[in-house]
Amino acid sequence: MGGNLLVAHGGGPTAVINASLYGVIKEAEAASQISKVLGAFHGIEGVLNEQFIDLSIQEPSQIDLLPFTPSSALGSCRRKLNSEDYPLLIEIFKKHQIKYFLYNGGNDSMDTCEKVGSLAKQEGLDLQVIGIPKTIDNDLAFTDHCPGFGSAARYVAMSTRDLWMEVQAMPLYATFLETMGRNAGWLAAAAALAQYDNKPCAQLIYLPEIPYNEDLFLSQIEEKLSQNNALLVVVSEGLVDQRGESIANMGMVDGFGHKIPGGVAQALSETVRKKLGAKARAEKPGFLGRSSFLMQSATDRKEAVEVGRQAVRAVLAGKSGLMISIIRDSDSPYHVRYGEVELKEVANVEHKFPIEWINAEGNHVTKSFNDYCQPLIGEAFPEYAKLKSNY
Amino acid sequence: MGGNLLVAHGGGPTAVINASLYGVIKEAEAASQISKVLGAFHGIEGVLNEQFIDLSIQEPSQIDLLPFTPSSALGSCRRKLNSEDYPLLIEIFKKHQIKYFLYNGGNDSMDTCEKVGSLAKQEGLDLQVIGIPKTIDNDLAFTDHCPGFGSAARYVAMSTRDLWMEVQAMPLYATFLETMGRNAGWLAAAAALAQYDNKPCAQLIYLPEIPYNEDLFLSQIEEKLSQNNALLVVVSEGLVDQRGESIANMGMVDGFGHKIPGGVAQALSETVRKKLGAKARAEKPGFLGRSSFLMQSATDRKEAVEVGRQAVRAVLAGKSGLMISIIRDSDSPYHVRYGEVELKEVANVEHKFPIEWINAEGNHVTKSFNDYCQPLIGEAFPEYAKLKSNY
Repeated sequence: MGGNLLVAHGGGPTAVINASLYGVIKEAEAASQISKVLGAFHGIEGVLNEQFIDLSIQEPSQIDLLPFTPSSALGSCRRKLNSEDYPLLIEIFKKHQIKYFLYNGGNDSMDTCEKVGSLAKQEGLDLQVIGIPKTIDNDLAFTDHCPGFGSAARYVAMSTRDLWMEVQAMPLYATFLETMGRNAGWLAAAAALAQYDNKPCAQLIYLPEIPYNEDLFLSQIEEKLSQNNALLVVVSEGLVDQRGESIANMGMVDGFGHKIPGGVAQALSETVRKKLGAKARAEKPGFLGRSSFLMQSATDRKEAVEVGRQAVRAVLAGKSGLMISIIRDSDSPYHVRYGEVELKEVANVEHKFPIEWINAEGNHVTKSFNDYCQPLIGEAFPEYAKLKSNY
Repeated sequence: MGGNLLVAHGGGPTAVINASLYGVIKEAEAASQISKVLGAFHGIEGVLNEQFIDLSIQEPSQIDLLPFTPSSALGSCRRKLNSEDYPLLIEIFKKHQIKYFLYNGGNDSMDTCEKVGSLAKQEGLDLQVIGIPKTIDNDLAFTDHCPGFGSAARYVAMSTRDLWMEVQAMPLYATFLETMGRNAGWLAAAAALAQYDNKPCAQLIYLPEIPYNEDLFLSQIEEKLSQNNALLVVVSEGLVDQRGESIANMGMVDGFGHKIPGGVAQALSETVRKKLGAKARAEKPGFLGRSSFLMQSATDRKEAVEVGRQAVRAVLAGKSGLMISIIRDSDSPYHVRYGEVELKEVANVEHKFPIEWINAEGNHVTKSFNDYCQPLIGEAFPEYAKLKSNY
């Protein structure tokens, strides 16, 4: 007998999470075992509130737009499940004949997904759960990379190049660009892919993996400014000091108790102004870094569709308690295939940036990272003009 | 007898100032009266330092890339001319046989351009000067709008829509987006062009033309939050209080003594957190708002090329002491032609946002602004998916 499939989004949206939703819908509509494809509004919160939409009977033109629509068309949430939630969830799954549950998210969502699956098994409920990976932070373990990262990395790399065009044209300030990425340096590192005139556009990149040391930082800034007044510094929002305390945060915590980062570029630019007497400014595009359609990586979009399809294939093959993973066979030519990993392996493990991909000075990344990241950000950037000094 | 043409950029770069440079080069290369087209590195500072490049003998492929390269390929500056600079300038113009001087910039640059022209006349120098308008702030008088504004407005409108997709998907914060624009509200107002599901994406827009009143602001925020937790507020960096003091600035002044704005969205989000106890966050893309190639408006690019061409035609017709202006004949179909205005009329006059285009509550703009701005931001935005509630 068939049953309904429920798909939901957890955690921060990305530029391509709707592409995964598209993959789920397209793969599921071809499967006779699946009666209806339901979506939950605002993640697990929508499930608990029984706020569903029927994805099987939407306008086809709207479904076709999903891969090209940033952020989450279903809505998402940051909601930690309490012990009281579980009996309610089981009741709701029964009531709406949910036989397949796909949760599309990052670490916290994979944890939720695993717990729902375990509970169902314990209660003898006929429910299969599969996690679909998604996070711009790229910090999910047991997958080469995460859908959403490639587009956010493209945003960082392209913004770094655009900002460098500005900084070198009028080198009045040491300019700081803050990237997202929480505790992992993947996104800030993507600035290294920005090149102009065969040189990196970001002269310094600071990652959370290397504890911040003010004296060292100021000496590195001073040295760069003595060479060239045009200075672009990229810094991860998750930068921490030697004690592991964030350099700046927004004074708020999220639904999982994590401190919400934000403001580190501003803080560093103020340090430079006060301690070095140099002009400095900070830019923080924030959420624009994960919600910009124009910065979608075509590779990322394609893979996001595919992990959605793979999740449906997994439940149809009778599988449960797994997350779809991406396995890279080769950097160049870039080739990946898809696999599965136990949800309980993935949940709450953080895939940190490899220390060996950080340079000896702790302020840039090595070629190994560029080789890893380049294929993920999609097609080559349009070329910019370079005039010659010739007079 | 022929002479050399010198072109230079002043003030902040834009996404299309290189398109004007392209227009100058292409129009000048066809004119037998012009021997060489020289560019000054970093504006008037480059002129004073005799740092020139010969634009007549660059790689044609690089010239063709100029309209698609953001920021200033020549470099720009914020340098106020001193009385000691003038005799030096005259000497340099003579030495390099500069007969035509085109200065591409905003108010301060038009002032510089006017002073150079007056001085040349006074000294009996055979020099014609023409100003080419450029400013993302759109605050130059006697022109319908300024090249550079359309692209920056497109950035604001598209970013507002992308951010709204994010805010409505996970409505955890009152979200503030800070736009550029200095003392004029034109750029913040462009947020009104962002629409999704037939509704404006920015629920509140605060312009510098309406003095900030904290009590009123907090009551407006509170009212919106009581209706919907998904709240996007767009605020101009130039917002001022009742005494004309900036709500936030970077604690620095530029080369013209103007305070450098920045940080108002952060300041307002902190006020909301402290006074209303609501979660709030702020995004400030900063310079990315004027240096993003992907956000170029095709209309803006085309007009930027044309003002460059018109400036060359003006000097060839023997004119001097003028700025090229854009005259709008009709909104829909959009049609413009080009005119000229006395530099001394333009210099140091600020074209403020019309008060009658601001709503009665002082927190959004009227349809008249939308009609004015819509054609400037170029082609329609790609459509985003909208799912129906149907279960």
